Amino acid sequence: MAEGENMTEARDFYLDDFQPGQRFVSGTFTMTEQAITAFAREYDPQPFHLDAQAAAGTLLEGLAASGWHTAAVTMRLLVDGDMRIAGGLLGAGGEINWPVPTRPGDVLHVESEVLDVRPSRSRPDRGIVTVLSETKTQDGVVVQTLKANMVVPRRR
Amino acid sequence: MAEGENMTEARDFYLDDFQPGQRFVSGTFTMTEQAITAFAREYDPQPFHLDAQAAAGTLLEGLAASGWHTAAVTMRLLVDGDMRIAGGLLGAGGEINWPVPTRPGDVLHVESEVLDVRPSRSRPDRGIVTVLSETKTQDGVVVQTLKANMVVPRRR
Repeated sequence: MAEGENMTEARDFYLDDFQPGQRFVSGTFTMTEQAITAFAREYDPQPFHLDAQAAAGTLLEGLAASGWHTAAVTMRLLVDGDMRIAGGLLGAGGEINWPVPTRPGDVLHVESEVLDVRPSRSRPDRGIVTVLSETKTQDGVVVQTLKANMVVPRRR
Repeated sequence: MAEGENMTEARDFYLDDFQPGQRFVSGTFTMTEQAITAFAREYDPQPFHLDAQAAAGTLLEGLAASGWHTAAVTMRLLVDGDMRIAGGLLGAGGEINWPVPTRPGDVLHVESEVLDVRPSRSRPDRGIVTVLSETKTQDGVVVQTLKANMVVPRRR
Protein backbone atom coordinates (compact mmCIF):
# COMPACT_ATOMS: atom_id res chain seq x y z
CA MET A 1 0.00 0.00 0.00
CA ALA A 2 1.40 3.38 -1.02
CA GLU A 3 2.26 5.80 1.74
CA GLY A 4 -0.52 8.28 2.39
CA GLU A 5 -3.19 6.13 0.78
CA ASN A 6 -6.35 6.14 2.86
CA MET A 7 -6.60 2.57 4.10
CA THR A 8 -10.00 2.99 5.78
CA GLU A 9 -11.53 4.45 2.64
CA ALA A 10 -9.91 1.75 0.52
CA ARG A 11 -11.45 -0.96 2.68
CA ASP A 12 -15.03 0.37 2.68
CA PHE A 13 -16.94 -1.56 0.04
CA TYR A 14 -20.15 -0.35 -1.53
CA LEU A 15 -22.35 -2.45 -3.79
CA ASP A 16 -20.65 -1.04 -6.87
CA ASP A 17 -17.24 -2.21 -5.60
CA PHE A 18 -18.24 -5.87 -5.56
CA GLN A 19 -18.03 -8.30 -8.44
CA PRO A 20 -18.31 -12.09 -8.68
CA GLY A 21 -15.02 -13.87 -8.14
CA GLN A 22 -13.57 -11.46 -5.56
CA ARG A 23 -11.93 -13.38 -2.72
CA PHE A 24 -11.15 -12.55 0.90
CA VAL A 25 -9.17 -14.56 3.47
CA SER A 26 -9.60 -13.94 7.20
CA GLY A 27 -7.22 -14.23 10.12
CA THR A 28 -7.33 -17.27 12.41
CA PHE A 29 -9.14 -18.35 15.56
CA THR A 30 -8.17 -21.34 17.72
CA MET A 31 -11.11 -23.38 19.00
CA THR A 32 -10.07 -24.41 22.49
CA GLU A 33 -11.91 -27.04 24.53
CA GLN A 34 -12.61 -24.31 27.08
CA ALA A 35 -14.25 -22.06 24.47
CA ILE A 36 -16.25 -24.96 23.01
CA THR A 37 -17.70 -26.00 26.37
CA ALA A 38 -18.31 -22.40 27.51
CA PHE A 39 -20.37 -21.64 24.39
CA ALA A 40 -22.22 -24.94 24.74
CA ARG A 41 -23.15 -24.36 28.38
CA GLU A 42 -24.88 -21.14 27.38
CA TYR A 43 -26.42 -21.97 24.01
CA ASP A 44 -26.20 -25.68 23.17
CA PRO A 45 -25.85 -27.75 26.37
CA GLN A 46 -25.64 -31.26 24.93
CA PRO A 47 -23.14 -33.97 25.98
CA PHE A 48 -21.17 -33.96 22.69
CA HIS A 49 -20.45 -30.22 23.12
CA LEU A 50 -19.83 -30.26 26.89
CA ASP A 51 -17.61 -33.14 27.93
CA ALA A 52 -15.05 -35.26 26.08
CA GLN A 53 -15.90 -38.46 27.95
CA ALA A 54 -19.65 -38.09 27.50
CA ALA A 55 -19.09 -37.21 23.83
CA ALA A 56 -17.17 -40.38 23.02
CA GLY A 57 -20.22 -42.59 22.54
CA THR A 58 -22.33 -40.08 20.57
CA LEU A 59 -22.99 -39.51 16.87
CA LEU A 60 -20.13 -36.96 16.89
CA GLU A 61 -17.67 -39.55 18.29
CA GLY A 62 -15.91 -37.07 20.55
CA LEU A 63 -16.12 -33.49 21.77
CA ALA A 64 -17.06 -31.04 19.03
CA ALA A 65 -18.13 -27.41 18.88
CA SER A 66 -21.77 -26.49 18.45
CA GLY A 67 -22.37 -25.62 14.81
CA TRP A 68 -23.65 -22.25 16.08
CA HIS A 69 -20.32 -21.70 17.80
CA THR A 70 -18.50 -22.35 14.53
CA ALA A 71 -20.94 -19.91 12.90
CA ALA A 72 -20.34 -17.24 15.57
CA VAL A 73 -16.56 -17.60 15.28
CA THR A 74 -16.86 -17.38 11.50
CA MET A 75 -18.75 -14.10 11.92
CA ARG A 76 -16.01 -12.76 14.19
CA LEU A 77 -13.35 -13.68 11.63
CA LEU A 78 -15.37 -11.94 8.91
CA VAL A 79 -15.89 -8.80 11.02
CA ASP A 80 -12.15 -8.65 11.76
CA GLY A 81 -11.28 -9.36 8.12
CA ASP A 82 -10.77 -7.32 4.96
CA MET A 83 -14.29 -7.48 3.51
CA ARG A 84 -15.26 -4.16 5.06
CA ILE A 85 -18.73 -3.37 3.81
CA ALA A 86 -19.82 0.27 4.14
CA GLY A 87 -22.40 0.32 6.93
CA GLY A 88 -21.23 -3.01 8.36
CA LEU A 89 -21.55 -6.73 7.68
CA LEU A 90 -25.25 -7.40 7.76
CA GLY A 91 -26.74 -10.65 6.53
CA ALA A 92 -30.37 -11.15 5.55
CA GLY A 93 -29.92 -14.91 5.68
CA GLY A 94 -28.47 -17.79 3.76
CA GLU A 95 -27.59 -21.46 3.69
CA ILE A 96 -25.31 -23.03 6.27
CA ASN A 97 -23.80 -26.50 6.39
CA TRP A 98 -21.46 -28.31 8.75
CA PRO A 99 -19.91 -31.18 6.77
CA VAL A 100 -17.41 -32.08 9.52
CA PRO A 101 -17.39 -31.28 13.26
CA THR A 102 -15.09 -28.56 14.62
CA ARG A 103 -12.76 -30.15 17.19
CA PRO A 104 -10.76 -28.75 20.12
CA GLY A 105 -7.45 -27.40 18.82
CA ASP A 106 -8.73 -26.63 15.33
CA VAL A 107 -7.29 -23.34 14.07
CA LEU A 108 -10.02 -21.87 11.90
CA HIS A 109 -9.92 -19.31 9.13
CA VAL A 110 -12.50 -18.22 6.58
CA GLU A 111 -12.10 -18.07 2.81
CA SER A 112 -14.84 -16.04 1.12
CA GLU A 113 -15.79 -15.59 -2.51
CA VAL A 114 -18.34 -13.21 -4.00
CA LEU A 115 -20.85 -15.25 -6.00
CA ASP A 116 -23.41 -12.68 -7.04
CA VAL A 117 -24.09 -8.92 -6.89
CA ARG A 118 -27.52 -7.43 -7.51
CA PRO A 119 -29.27 -4.12 -6.79
CA SER A 120 -32.43 -4.25 -4.70
CA ARG A 121 -35.62 -3.84 -6.72
CA SER A 122 -37.53 -2.09 -3.94
CA ARG A 123 -34.69 -0.12 -2.31
CA PRO A 124 -32.54 1.89 -4.74
CA ASP A 125 -30.04 2.77 -1.97
CA ARG A 126 -28.86 -0.81 -1.47
CA GLY A 127 -28.39 -4.26 -2.94
CA ILE A 128 -27.57 -7.85 -2.09
CA VAL A 129 -24.15 -9.47 -2.39
CA THR A 130 -24.12 -13.26 -2.11
CA VAL A 131 -20.91 -14.47 -0.48
CA LEU A 132 -19.78 -18.07 -0.05
CA SER A 133 -17.64 -18.36 3.08
CA GLU A 134 -15.82 -21.61 3.78
CA THR A 135 -14.55 -22.05 7.32
CA LYS A 136 -11.48 -24.27 7.24
CA THR A 137 -9.07 -25.88 9.69
CA GLN A 138 -5.30 -25.55 9.55
CA ASP A 139 -5.35 -28.71 7.40
CA GLY A 140 -7.80 -27.23 4.89
CA VAL A 141 -10.75 -29.31 6.11
CA VAL A 142 -14.01 -27.42 5.55
CA VAL A 143 -16.01 -27.45 8.80
CA GLN A 144 -18.65 -24.98 7.64
CA THR A 145 -19.96 -23.51 4.41
CA LEU A 146 -22.11 -20.39 4.55
CA LYS A 147 -23.75 -18.89 1.50
CA ALA A 148 -24.91 -15.56 2.87
CA ASN A 149 -26.95 -12.74 1.37
CA MET A 150 -25.34 -9.54 2.58
CA VAL A 151 -27.15 -6.20 2.57
CA VAL A 152 -24.80 -3.63 0.99
CA PRO A 153 -25.42 0.11 0.47
CA ARG A 154 -24.86 1.77 -2.88
CA ARG A 155 -22.41 4.60 -3.14
CA ARG A 156 -24.30 7.90 -2.83
CA MET B 1 -49.01 -37.62 32.85
CA ALA B 2 -49.83 -40.87 34.63
CA GLU B 3 -47.81 -41.72 37.72
CA GLY B 4 -44.95 -44.05 36.94
CA GLU B 5 -44.92 -43.26 33.23
CA ASN B 6 -41.37 -42.99 31.96
CA MET B 7 -41.09 -39.37 30.86
CA THR B 8 -37.57 -39.64 29.48
CA GLU B 9 -38.47 -42.62 27.31
CA ALA B 10 -41.63 -40.90 26.12
CA ARG B 11 -39.68 -37.83 25.02
CA ASP B 12 -36.89 -39.62 23.11
CA PHE B 13 -37.71 -39.43 19.41
CA TYR B 14 -36.26 -41.80 16.83
CA LEU B 15 -36.62 -41.36 13.09
CA ASP B 16 -39.63 -43.65 13.04
CA ASP B 17 -41.43 -41.41 15.58
CA PHE B 18 -41.38 -38.36 13.31
CA GLN B 19 -43.92 -37.46 10.68
CA PRO B 20 -44.60 -34.30 8.66
CA GLY B 21 -46.91 -31.88 10.42
CA GLN B 22 -45.76 -32.59 13.98
CA ARG B 23 -45.37 -29.35 15.92
CA PHE B 24 -43.34 -28.33 18.95
CA VAL B 25 -43.38 -25.07 20.90
CA SER B 26 -40.44 -24.03 23.09
CA GLY B 27 -40.24 -22.04 26.30
CA THR B 28 -39.18 -18.39 26.22
CA PHE B 29 -35.95 -16.38 26.39
CA THR B 30 -35.76 -12.64 27.00
CA MET B 31 -33.18 -10.81 24.87
CA THR B 32 -31.77 -8.18 27.19
CA GLU B 33 -29.57 -5.33 26.00
CA GLN B 34 -26.83 -6.72 28.23
CA ALA B 35 -27.02 -10.16 26.58
CA ILE B 36 -27.11 -8.63 23.08
CA THR B 37 -24.01 -6.50 23.63
CA ALA B 38 -22.12 -9.27 25.49
CA PHE B 39 -22.61 -11.70 22.58
CA ALA B 40 -21.66 -9.01 20.08
CA ARG B 41 -18.45 -8.07 21.88
CA GLU B 42 -17.27 -11.66 21.53
CA TYR B 43 -18.60 -12.71 18.12
CA ASP B 44 -20.02 -9.80 16.15
CA PRO B 45 -18.50 -6.50 17.36
CA GLN B 46 -20.29 -4.02 15.09
CA PRO B 47 -21.87 -0.72 16.20
CA PHE B 48 -25.50 -1.81 15.60
CA HIS B 49 -25.02 -4.76 17.99
CA LEU B 50 -22.92 -2.93 20.61
CA ASP B 51 -24.35 0.46 21.44
CA ALA B 52 -27.82 1.99 21.16
CA GLN B 53 -26.54 5.47 20.26
CA ALA B 54 -24.12 4.24 17.62
CA ALA B 55 -26.83 1.93 16.24
CA ALA B 56 -29.34 4.72 15.67
CA GLY B 57 -27.90 5.87 12.34
CA THR B 58 -27.25 2.42 10.85
CA LEU B 59 -29.17 0.15 8.47
CA LEU B 60 -30.72 -1.54 11.54
CA GLU B 61 -32.01 1.80 12.87
CA GLY B 62 -31.27 0.97 16.49
CA LEU B 63 -29.64 -1.66 18.66
CA ALA B 64 -30.36 -5.20 17.50
CA ALA B 65 -29.00 -8.65 18.28
CA SER B 66 -26.52 -10.34 15.98
CA GLY B 67 -28.38 -12.83 13.82
CA TRP B 68 -25.99 -15.45 15.18
CA HIS B 69 -27.09 -14.55 18.69
CA THR B 70 -30.73 -15.09 17.70
CA ALA B 71 -29.62 -18.40 16.16
CA ALA B 72 -27.76 -19.45 19.32
CA VAL B 73 -30.71 -18.56 21.55
CA THR B 74 -33.00 -20.48 19.20
CA MET B 75 -30.76 -23.52 19.64
CA ARG B 76 -30.93 -23.17 23.42
CA LEU B 77 -34.72 -23.01 23.29
CA LEU B 78 -34.80 -26.12 21.08
CA VAL B 79 -32.41 -28.04 23.36
CA ASP B 80 -34.55 -27.14 26.38
CA GLY B 81 -37.77 -27.95 24.51
CA ASP B 82 -39.85 -31.05 23.90
CA MET B 83 -38.36 -32.22 20.60
CA ARG B 84 -36.00 -34.63 22.34
CA ILE B 85 -34.22 -36.53 19.60
CA ALA B 86 -32.53 -39.76 20.67
CA GLY B 87 -28.82 -39.07 20.60
CA GLY B 88 -29.32 -35.30 20.76
CA LEU B 89 -30.23 -32.38 18.50
CA LEU B 90 -27.67 -32.46 15.75
CA GLY B 91 -28.05 -30.43 12.58
CA ALA B 92 -26.22 -31.11 9.32
CA GLY B 93 -27.15 -27.67 8.05
CA GLY B 94 -30.03 -25.71 6.64
CA GLU B 95 -31.40 -22.37 5.57
CA ILE B 96 -31.57 -19.41 7.93
CA ASN B 97 -33.22 -16.05 7.49
CA TRP B 98 -33.63 -12.99 9.66
CA PRO B 99 -36.61 -11.03 8.26
CA VAL B 100 -36.71 -8.57 11.18
CA PRO B 101 -34.05 -7.62 13.76
CA THR B 102 -34.26 -8.96 17.32
CA ARG B 103 -34.50 -6.00 19.70
CA PRO B 104 -33.68 -5.57 23.39
CA GLY B 105 -36.67 -6.68 25.46
CA ASP B 106 -37.96 -9.15 22.86
CA VAL B 107 -39.23 -12.31 24.54
CA LEU B 108 -38.46 -15.08 22.08
CA HIS B 109 -39.94 -18.53 21.64
CA VAL B 110 -39.59 -21.10 18.87
CA GLU B 111 -42.40 -22.83 16.99
CA SER B 112 -41.22 -25.86 15.05
CA GLU B 113 -42.90 -28.04 12.47
CA VAL B 114 -41.64 -31.25 10.92
CA LEU B 115 -41.58 -30.83 7.13
CA ASP B 116 -39.98 -34.04 5.92
CA VAL B 117 -38.68 -37.38 7.22
CA ARG B 118 -36.39 -39.60 5.19
CA PRO B 119 -34.03 -42.52 5.91
CA SER B 120 -30.39 -42.11 4.95
CA ARG B 121 -29.41 -43.98 1.80
CA SER B 122 -25.84 -44.63 2.92
CA ARG B 123 -26.39 -45.09 6.67
CA PRO B 124 -29.18 -47.51 7.59
CA ASP B 125 -28.93 -46.60 11.29
CA ARG B 126 -30.12 -43.01 10.80
CA GLY B 127 -32.07 -40.54 8.71
CA ILE B 128 -32.77 -36.86 8.18
CA VAL B 129 -35.71 -34.92 9.59
CA THR B 130 -36.25 -31.46 8.10
CA VAL B 131 -37.66 -29.09 10.70
CA LEU B 132 -38.87 -25.53 10.12
CA SER B 133 -38.32 -23.48 13.28
CA GLU B 134 -39.76 -19.99 13.49
CA THR B 135 -38.36 -17.80 16.24
CA LYS B 136 -41.03 -15.31 17.29
CA THR B 137 -41.38 -12.39 19.64
CA GLN B 138 -44.11 -12.03 22.24
CA ASP B 139 -46.12 -10.22 19.54
CA GLY B 140 -45.79 -13.06 17.07
CA VAL B 141 -43.26 -11.26 14.87
CA VAL B 142 -40.95 -13.78 13.18
CA VAL B 143 -37.33 -12.68 13.74
CA GLN B 144 -35.76 -15.86 12.36
CA THR B 145 -36.74 -18.82 10.23
CA LEU B 146 -34.52 -21.89 10.25
CA LYS B 147 -35.13 -24.87 8.00
CA ALA B 148 -32.74 -27.41 9.49
CA ASN B 149 -31.79 -30.92 8.47
CA MET B 150 -31.51 -32.89 11.68
CA VAL B 151 -29.60 -36.17 11.93
CA VAL B 152 -31.87 -38.66 13.73
CA PRO B 153 -31.09 -42.30 14.66
CA ARG B 154 -33.44 -45.14 13.80
CA ARG B 155 -34.84 -47.27 16.59
CA ARG B 156 -32.70 -50.40 16.95
